[in-house]
Amino acid sequence: MGRGMIPPSQIDAILDELKFDAAGLLTVVVADAANGQVLMVAHANREALRRTLETGQMHYWSRSRQKLWLKGETSGHTQDVREMRIDCDGDAVLFKVDQTSGACHEGYRSCFFRVVREGALVVDGERVFDPKAVY
Amino acid sequence: MGRGMIPPSQIDAILDELKFDAAGLLTVVVADAANGQVLMVAHANREALRRTLETGQMHYWSRSRQKLWLKGETSGHTQDVREMRIDCDGDAVLFKVDQTSGACHEGYRSCFFRVVREGALVVDGERVFDPKAVY
Repeated sequence: MGRGMIPPSQIDAILDELKFDAAGLLTVVVADAANGQVLMVAHANREALRRTLETGQMHYWSRSRQKLWLKGETSGHTQDVREMRIDCDGDAVLFKVDQTSGACHEGYRSCFFRVVREGALVVDGERVFDPKAVY
Repeated sequence: MGRGMIPPSQIDAILDELKFDAAGLLTVVVADAANGQVLMVAHANREALRRTLETGQMHYWSRSRQKLWLKGETSGHTQDVREMRIDCDGDAVLFKVDQTSGACHEGYRSCFFRVVREGALVVDGERVFDPKAVY
């Protein structure tokens, strides 16, 4: 999709299709545009989605810090939007992105790096960066 | 994974790794085990996840109906669990499933059947069943 692929005049019409919860948020699922791997789940308010569509870079609402958050603002590991989908209820959004380095602050490509195997949670995935060197 | 792949004695240890919100819920992302397509987003409480792991069939918590919900209990479109992953924060879970027919109550394979194209939301996907015949 990229920056400017949605005319500014049409951004509100798309956002109007979404249903935000009592806190003004909805669930955002982010998948790798290259292979469909689910990278992370986060939350966004209307303003975060507006900035995402205006800039072509993923923005979220941090519930813990109570602030708007450009993914990669600290790490440089930005997410370029390639596709935006919304679900039947309009309360969840799926973005396909080009992920720089890794999405997870623990250094993995995907935040879902722990998998259940033989009844226990184990790490499944290589670190793509060193969190200590980045944060 | 399938039924009984997790010894009952180990289910609690896995659930103890998860962080439920103030309402006792967390976010569940469900993807097609065959090709990784994101099928739906829903919520689960601890009991829904326990039944999921005990039976190998996806269970959720319906916030609108305030009840436990076996996916497919009305439609027959059940979801057989193949893999369970949890994210770095432990507040989101990713299941890979074998989906019978379609996940979406509107008849589509995925709930994310609307995509932004040329600045507008359009339907992208064929109906795999007729909702009027099923519900």
